[in-house]
Amino acid sequence: MAYLNENYLKLKAGYLFPEIARRVNAFCQANPEAAKRLVRCGIGDVTEPLPQAVITAMHKAVDEMGKRETFRGYGPEQGYDFLRKAIAQNDYRDRSIKIADDEIFVSDGSKCDGGNILDILGHKNRIAMMDPVYPVYVDTNVMAGHTGPPDDSGIYSGLLYLACTPENGFVAEIPDERVDIIYLCYPNNPTGAVASREQLAQWVEYALKNESIILYDAAYEAYISDPAVPHSVFEIEGARNCAIEFRSFSKHGGFTGTRCAFTVVPKTLMASAPDSRKASLHGLWHRRMSTKFNGVSYPVQRGAEALYTPEGKAQVKGLIQHYMGNAQVLRKGLKAAGLNVFGGVNAPYIWVQTPPGVTSWQAFDRILNEANVVITPGSGFGRNGEGYFRVSAFNIRANAEEVARRFQALAW
Amino acid sequence: MAYLNENYLKLKAGYLFPEIARRVNAFCQANPEAAKRLVRCGIGDVTEPLPQAVITAMHKAVDEMGKRETFRGYGPEQGYDFLRKAIAQNDYRDRSIKIADDEIFVSDGSKCDGGNILDILGHKNRIAMMDPVYPVYVDTNVMAGHTGPPDDSGIYSGLLYLACTPENGFVAEIPDERVDIIYLCYPNNPTGAVASREQLAQWVEYALKNESIILYDAAYEAYISDPAVPHSVFEIEGARNCAIEFRSFSKHGGFTGTRCAFTVVPKTLMASAPDSRKASLHGLWHRRMSTKFNGVSYPVQRGAEALYTPEGKAQVKGLIQHYMGNAQVLRKGLKAAGLNVFGGVNAPYIWVQTPPGVTSWQAFDRILNEANVVITPGSGFGRNGEGYFRVSAFNIRANAEEVARRFQALAW
Repeated sequence: MAYLNENYLKLKAGYLFPEIARRVNAFCQANPEAAKRLVRCGIGDVTEPLPQAVITAMHKAVDEMGKRETFRGYGPEQGYDFLRKAIAQNDYRDRSIKIADDEIFVSDGSKCDGGNILDILGHKNRIAMMDPVYPVYVDTNVMAGHTGPPDDSGIYSGLLYLACTPENGFVAEIPDERVDIIYLCYPNNPTGAVASREQLAQWVEYALKNESIILYDAAYEAYISDPAVPHSVFEIEGARNCAIEFRSFSKHGGFTGTRCAFTVVPKTLMASAPDSRKASLHGLWHRRMSTKFNGVSYPVQRGAEALYTPEGKAQVKGLIQHYMGNAQVLRKGLKAAGLNVFGGVNAPYIWVQTPPGVTSWQAFDRILNEANVVITPGSGFGRNGEGYFRVSAFNIRANAEEVARRFQALAW
Repeated sequence: MAYLNENYLKLKAGYLFPEIARRVNAFCQANPEAAKRLVRCGIGDVTEPLPQAVITAMHKAVDEMGKRETFRGYGPEQGYDFLRKAIAQNDYRDRSIKIADDEIFVSDGSKCDGGNILDILGHKNRIAMMDPVYPVYVDTNVMAGHTGPPDDSGIYSGLLYLACTPENGFVAEIPDERVDIIYLCYPNNPTGAVASREQLAQWVEYALKNESIILYDAAYEAYISDPAVPHSVFEIEGARNCAIEFRSFSKHGGFTGTRCAFTVVPKTLMASAPDSRKASLHGLWHRRMSTKFNGVSYPVQRGAEALYTPEGKAQVKGLIQHYMGNAQVLRKGLKAAGLNVFGGVNAPYIWVQTPPGVTSWQAFDRILNEANVVITPGSGFGRNGEGYFRVSAFNIRANAEEVARRFQALAW
């Protein structure tokens, strides 16, 4: 019989969000009345419509696709020049970061890129990741055969987990051993923590010294309000030689259902074959995308480009202000409910400690049943997420206010 | 130093189409006047605008994305129910093929799916593919470490190549050894050949007997004109237990730049771990797509859905007739030029034998320089493609007619 990839059989039964969906559906079927007042603060999905500049640009591009003279077939697999340039200019060069247009690879999502990046990396790498962590980073390493089976708490052998706790402000500390690959995510999903320039500089120093690679997930950089906090790992001297950065329009422009993101792979970033032959990962990623990808939909790329126009920028700013206004309302309400609250200042996520003796999933069920609010149980993000839950600020304002009220009415 | 995937270093320098683009660019820079009369029949890319039904549906969906009440965030990773249902109903159940809605996985391209499918398959499989072959199938197996290095003619050790020649009508013959995975593509890219129902039934019988899996690329099924030729491998009894099918809207609806495709993974298709644990590949692919993909852009899915409306179907039919009209013009012209011509009847590709003693790349350079026409050298598709070139029928009619004339004026 043909062989399957047996590493998939090591994966825990459900990816976090499908399991949440399952419990919510069961609750709604059993409680049709309560279901009507359900408020979702679980999955981090935007609720506001696309900015008008995007809508206008997409309509124009759709019209182009309807006329022979302006129709576009296959685009460049790495993204259209117009978008690569807009990104490199606005997100990097205008901020004094040297990134060339062709170091930008446009894709259909950071989740995809964050998983697919393993295609170009070897199987012998020692891999470190934050705990709690975005589950995709763990699961894609399991799928690629980089781990053993999980233990009872869901910890996979073969990975180095970097504990992120209140004691270290949920910022991963430099390990006292050498690793090859480090996943870092700031502003962090799920904790909402950010790394200071000094903390990031320490990581870059570690990576350069150890010839390691930092996989830097900056999908939430647009939510940074503190001017001292870096938006990109490439703000740190030397990062061009040790880092790949993932960015997304999902939360920035509201593109979760429209699908566009990008990954920055500097040409100066090298890695090695087991026999010591070295190559630029830029070349490998270019080859990967040319062979296994066909570019992002043309109207979507025009929509993303529009985010960089003056109108688009103003509209994105409005979106961010809206969601961060929600975050403020939620932080205040959760604090008033007597809960211990983190994040929500430079990130659209609030990370909340459960009351003593209450597990993450117990909190999830209780909040669902009694407040009819969906949150995300922290344990779904790893062992160090146990005892926490994540509240998403992606909502309409009235819902954020309602959730704040309901938490205060909830007796633990 | 961190490890890269050393299998990438085995890949030949350039993927076929970038190499063609490089030569064409060099020619155009050296010959600016001739460049003005260049006609491209190389890469198989559509030229006609999107059907009006698609344009209307996409505009409507973009408008929905601009209003909070109708805005859509993350969609299901496997595709929206409306599209999965439209596909399963129209392409399968209406043709008496039992495929459930949730056996359809909507994606952003068959190239992506055809590469990514290896994620869920094991590394110990013995793999067979047609020669000539769509390069992505070879290259993604090289990247996954399923081969040794290539020899001088570009043949990778570790793969079983099934020679497709005029003698067997370019239809792969059943090998006299057991293999686990077989890539089949009908209507074929690049030869334009189709497999008869009997030939396909023999492959299904072989796969069932050997517990092998057929990866069936049917991206060009819409171009089949002969009513006896099967459109889907699932028309063959038993294929649900041994096949995965790849389909695309790229050539069918003109979606090469709009990006939408789908893959059919029957729930009854099983594979085995090395320790003999069995699992359904449907479950593994579902997990793969949930973890490493985030669904296709909502407006694009609405556009694809519109292809199944009565207007959409009529407009697609018009597109196919247009391109197949070109194929007829080109076949006639190439024959009149004294060339030996295959394909172009049930497929938009014409497979042409080079004159005696002329290699594929020699023919490419000659046709580029003397006729100012871009074709695809057959050797780019594998050893058995040497001595052939592919002419694409994707063009405006005037260009097809012009190319037919120029070939007749070309003195070999």
